[in-house]
Amino acid sequence: MYPLIKRIIQCFRGHKGNTSTVKKVAVVGATGYTGVELLRLLVNHPDVEVAQVTSRANVGSRVDAMFPNLRGFLDLEFSAPEPEQLADCELVFYATPNGVAMKGVPQLLDAGTRVIDLAADFRIKNIDTWSQWYGMEHACPDLVAEAVYGLPELNREQVKNARLVANPGCYPTAVTLGLVPLLENGLIDPDSIIADTKSGASGAGRQANVGTLLCEAGDSFKAYGVQGHRHQPEIAQTLSLVAGQSLGLTFVPHLLPLIRGIHATLYSNLIKGELPYGTDLQAMYEQRYKDEPFVDVMPAGAHPETRSVRGANICRLAVHRPQQGKRLVVLSVIDNLVKGAAGQAVQNMNLMFGLPEQAGLNSPGMLP
Amino acid sequence: MYPLIKRIIQCFRGHKGNTSTVKKVAVVGATGYTGVELLRLLVNHPDVEVAQVTSRANVGSRVDAMFPNLRGFLDLEFSAPEPEQLADCELVFYATPNGVAMKGVPQLLDAGTRVIDLAADFRIKNIDTWSQWYGMEHACPDLVAEAVYGLPELNREQVKNARLVANPGCYPTAVTLGLVPLLENGLIDPDSIIADTKSGASGAGRQANVGTLLCEAGDSFKAYGVQGHRHQPEIAQTLSLVAGQSLGLTFVPHLLPLIRGIHATLYSNLIKGELPYGTDLQAMYEQRYKDEPFVDVMPAGAHPETRSVRGANICRLAVHRPQQGKRLVVLSVIDNLVKGAAGQAVQNMNLMFGLPEQAGLNSPGMLP
Amino acid sequence: MYPLIKRIIQCFRGHKGNTSTVKKVAVVGATGYTGVELLRLLVNHPDVEVAQVTSRANVGSRVDAMFPNLRGFLDLEFSAPEPEQLADCELVFYATPNGVAMKGVPQLLDAGTRVIDLAADFRIKNIDTWSQWYGMEHACPDLVAEAVYGLPELNREQVKNARLVANPGCYPTAVTLGLVPLLENGLIDPDSIIADTKSGASGAGRQANVGTLLCEAGDSFKAYGVQGHRHQPEIAQTLSLVAGQSLGLTFVPHLLPLIRGIHATLYSNLIKGELPYGTDLQAMYEQRYKDEPFVDVMPAGAHPETRSVRGANICRLAVHRPQQGKRLVVLSVIDNLVKGAAGQAVQNMNLMFGLPEQAGLNSPGMLP
Amino acid sequence: MYPLIKRIIQCFRGHKGNTSTVKKVAVVGATGYTGVELLRLLVNHPDVEVAQVTSRANVGSRVDAMFPNLRGFLDLEFSAPEPEQLADCELVFYATPNGVAMKGVPQLLDAGTRVIDLAADFRIKNIDTWSQWYGMEHACPDLVAEAVYGLPELNREQVKNARLVANPGCYPTAVTLGLVPLLENGLIDPDSIIADTKSGASGAGRQANVGTLLCEAGDSFKAYGVQGHRHQPEIAQTLSLVAGQSLGLTFVPHLLPLIRGIHATLYSNLIKGELPYGTDLQAMYEQRYKDEPFVDVMPAGAHPETRSVRGANICRLAVHRPQQGKRLVVLSVIDNLVKGAAGQAVQNMNLMFGLPEQAGLNSPGMLP
Repeated sequence: MYPLIKRIIQCFRGHKGNTSTVKKVAVVGATGYTGVELLRLLVNHPDVEVAQVTSRANVGSRVDAMFPNLRGFLDLEFSAPEPEQLADCELVFYATPNGVAMKGVPQLLDAGTRVIDLAADFRIKNIDTWSQWYGMEHACPDLVAEAVYGLPELNREQVKNARLVANPGCYPTAVTLGLVPLLENGLIDPDSIIADTKSGASGAGRQANVGTLLCEAGDSFKAYGVQGHRHQPEIAQTLSLVAGQSLGLTFVPHLLPLIRGIHATLYSNLIKGELPYGTDLQAMYEQRYKDEPFVDVMPAGAHPETRSVRGANICRLAVHRPQQGKRLVVLSVIDNLVKGAAGQAVQNMNLMFGLPEQAGLNSPGMLP
Repeated sequence: MYPLIKRIIQCFRGHKGNTSTVKKVAVVGATGYTGVELLRLLVNHPDVEVAQVTSRANVGSRVDAMFPNLRGFLDLEFSAPEPEQLADCELVFYATPNGVAMKGVPQLLDAGTRVIDLAADFRIKNIDTWSQWYGMEHACPDLVAEAVYGLPELNREQVKNARLVANPGCYPTAVTLGLVPLLENGLIDPDSIIADTKSGASGAGRQANVGTLLCEAGDSFKAYGVQGHRHQPEIAQTLSLVAGQSLGLTFVPHLLPLIRGIHATLYSNLIKGELPYGTDLQAMYEQRYKDEPFVDVMPAGAHPETRSVRGANICRLAVHRPQQGKRLVVLSVIDNLVKGAAGQAVQNMNLMFGLPEQAGLNSPGMLP
Repeated sequence: MYPLIKRIIQCFRGHKGNTSTVKKVAVVGATGYTGVELLRLLVNHPDVEVAQVTSRANVGSRVDAMFPNLRGFLDLEFSAPEPEQLADCELVFYATPNGVAMKGVPQLLDAGTRVIDLAADFRIKNIDTWSQWYGMEHACPDLVAEAVYGLPELNREQVKNARLVANPGCYPTAVTLGLVPLLENGLIDPDSIIADTKSGASGAGRQANVGTLLCEAGDSFKAYGVQGHRHQPEIAQTLSLVAGQSLGLTFVPHLLPLIRGIHATLYSNLIKGELPYGTDLQAMYEQRYKDEPFVDVMPAGAHPETRSVRGANICRLAVHRPQQGKRLVVLSVIDNLVKGAAGQAVQNMNLMFGLPEQAGLNSPGMLP
Repeated sequence: MYPLIKRIIQCFRGHKGNTSTVKKVAVVGATGYTGVELLRLLVNHPDVEVAQVTSRANVGSRVDAMFPNLRGFLDLEFSAPEPEQLADCELVFYATPNGVAMKGVPQLLDAGTRVIDLAADFRIKNIDTWSQWYGMEHACPDLVAEAVYGLPELNREQVKNARLVANPGCYPTAVTLGLVPLLENGLIDPDSIIADTKSGASGAGRQANVGTLLCEAGDSFKAYGVQGHRHQPEIAQTLSLVAGQSLGLTFVPHLLPLIRGIHATLYSNLIKGELPYGTDLQAMYEQRYKDEPFVDVMPAGAHPETRSVRGANICRLAVHRPQQGKRLVVLSVIDNLVKGAAGQAVQNMNLMFGLPEQAGLNSPGMLP
């Protein structure tokens, strides 16, 4: 099958973009779920070419031998992550475990290559907090200060010019987008926020691990990390900036018996238990996101399903005020591998390259 | 296979009980998941005999043709629910849709037959509230007053002598058992309670319905009924009685992509944001439930999994105070068909018959 | 979100095709899984516009209210299937239950509109056989003779000029593509073929049905239709044509506890129990499909996974001769909703319109 | 919860058996799925006491900390597998990886302790064949000759007196029980047998392994081992004995996206393509298994579901002759962890101890 598809891809590329301006990118550490999802999105992107895919442990073996869905779409072998060769690319994605990117990024930036880190190395500005939660010293704290937190709905302009983007965590994306309108409008008590979140198992990665075997996680449901989870300080950092004040946040993650999908159920108390006179919550949400290509506010009363965003770079929201009471309930769904990881990274890349923000990302969710 | 098993069952029965005292029971409306689960538990119960299984729509067809797991265990056909014949039994279970039991119960009670209703007809004491949520007039409001709410951990003594038991809802069982120790000890603000609950699809019943098709619910997750759900007033009624005051309760149910299991994540604020000096939450929970055969308080820091109670009549709990802060998080899991329905009904039956409370219920969860 | 995406879609369309040549198409009966999948593929197709989506039962309600994954991608309401309006389109897809298309097709063809029927009305040439399996009289037997069986790998040229295409069944697609090379080369005994096939539940459709509830089909596996299944005569018809002789075929379908995916395990005996001297099975398969954009022959020894084609218009094959014995085993996977239904229909449409065969179909499977 | 349940268990035990005759047993290597399932069955067995549970890697940690479903049912820590202490038991189950039991068994047998090996060390009589498939030298070939193949439906009398039982593999159990009546009656061509088998993921064990992660195996289906699988020679050995001649057997296993369950679809050709005059297949199957407590022949035309035996020690069969043709199709389902492993081991233990064969095994499958 291979050669024909390749020819036709070239042919489409001719229609869509301009081969002379195709950008070379690399994916470091592409053997995990975030990595293969990035490849799935990039092989169909009209304006980029995946030039290198690295994995120290798999040098010389074909990428599509590990991920057969890519057969016919990507004619590459895994290579070693050599800085000189990576620097040939205009942009490098790190889809590596936490603590890897920070060792390679300085050299790449010096060479003029831009970087998007899909792990957590550059997400938390307070270095002590970061070290405490991630259990290591930071290799380049100065770059943390420079890094742009890549949530385009908050930081679009900064992303465009960034050398280094910290791609947000999956839970933080779903939670933050759900609460931004309430906090920007000062409607809720910042100390009352509870984020009850549920994630598919792909969020736990592709490591061999008893806990995420089909037979352990496949017909069960549980909370985890109730005493503390790394995404709590990341969320608190962003929401505090939006609210303009520090805030309390109870964050409880749960493991869903499915592969893709995050559902955040977000509770908060209205200030004084009431909505200010004349406030229309639904209209407020729709207004906030009306120009956002990847945030969809559902009609009043709706309940978004994770499957409606399966495979798509979309955050779908609904806002509820049960029985017109003092408490609000916001429902927010994303595909953790797309808007929660690889899709958001491509969105950031598009902004950095000055491409249409939706390039390569314009597919509906796969339902059923 | 049939005759041999039957012989051996008789043989075991001889060992275990006394055939002269075996109690006859009937199951009305046994074509749903609650019904078949009740049969699964009852066919192995040492002290009862399932004498009748009714279903108007299936009169004359074998029960084990509909539920092949019962082949060799139950040699009955579905019969029509005739009051005279039901009255031959000492106890009748109603596993029918809401609104059915209330029409047949008065006649049975008059005939001296005791009743356990697994539906909602007798759960809510306030008739107006009931009518509002269930959309019908009540047929026998006086019996609502008499009915005992069959949560043995609260009402064991009343159940023993009850003529009519209202078997609790699945969500209410998980939520109530999780919060009782906190409310009995006056530790939390009754207006701060949030119950974020997740249920497997069997809670929605065995009716043909697009929403619970495998292709709709099988690889997705969503909230439902955020504006209001029938279990909210049931929970509020019980918790208010325990707390000795009315209370606010935000209740949000979600649909899990699995068959059995409820997980309740229960949030509440400590009064004044603090634990009274000397209070040991873990010890308090263990003390409260130390004599309860079907409530298991896990060690501090644990996260109960729904699979650990799959098929078992157990509520498994863990209590957390994240970062020793002002908010508590209680995790509570049950199998919605067992401790949330059929198992609890058998537990109530055991109490009503003066049998050991664990008779027929003493199996571990099926893991994996 | 809507207007912006729409604008950008228009914008891309400008890049990719020529709006003056965009073809109008309609989908009749788009409330099932085949229908929504067709819409998912068509909304991103560069050269067509979905002008009408019909459903008698849902006239006036938005398509994306039923299928929220399409929010922002399709700004249409369901309309009634009026022949005059359908005839405004260049091509009409029937995604209706069996027996519906045959009533509407004659009028459309007379009006010059081409038709692809995704149901079974035009698949079987022998009208008596068809009536026997589908339990009705055929409304337009003459058109059955004209209809082209839309398996492009066999009938590409005929499809290009067809007025009426009978889109193949899902099982027949997987089975036929797996066996064609063996039969074309006369290697196997045509009476020895066994097709043990397994399908995800979406093949059973979106009708409310107890048998395909999550709680019935979600954690179980079974065969069905062992005594006979409608796809048996369809497969036998095609394979007989390829083999140039009638053939016996044992066909046993099974229901998988997942949503998308067909896996066919195909057994056959080598003629005289041996491969002719010099025959290289692997090379033979690769040669047969080397120019086929949607058939992927995996390396020798491979085991294709259904997930590798999830959402993709690909049939992935592997051919085995266990222990170099007398029997061959071919493994064939497709996504039943894509290469087994909607994707193949788009492929046929592309051929009929003279578009690149891969237009709108060039995405990798979604893994994980 | 613990003490009360324990007390009541003791109490029931008094009713059911005779504490003075309770047999002590041990489980070696109980950290896998076969091990925990064995414990689930044994803790409720009226006549045995689990005296030791060993795991070298987990010495000193509680068994119910690893398997919380056993909380309240088993008050033991993992101990080291010391031969002297194991010899205190009347019977030892090996639930270890292949190659472990053969090292410990001789010493135990010498000490008078009987052994059931749930792994493959003693299943295959031909030592060379065993070594070839299992890739090691056998440590005690003489005991292989002595070991009884523990399929009670074939070898009941030998099991009763055995010192050492080789518990059959999961696939071999399902396949053998499905074909025995045909071979015993000489109806089929022994060279025509094809076993297309499908297993849940628990068959692959509880080892950390990428291939059985939820995200790899949870929404997919594939064949594996088409070139050869260890259960092929085991099945061939047993079927040859039954048939009284050597036979060809094509065996293709597949991985199901569920936890428990095996479905074997068994194809064979009638000798001369016909049934001998007067042969009633259905009656023949019913007759063969009429006294077997754990084999259930379904009515003619039925399709057994794996869920109907979930958690139960039952093999459920249906025999088909599609279109009254030359080929038979037998459908056979078991729970791979019960009748395919732990349940069959308990059945063998009951026979060895002279207990009722159904003791501790008399539960219906868990449906839904």
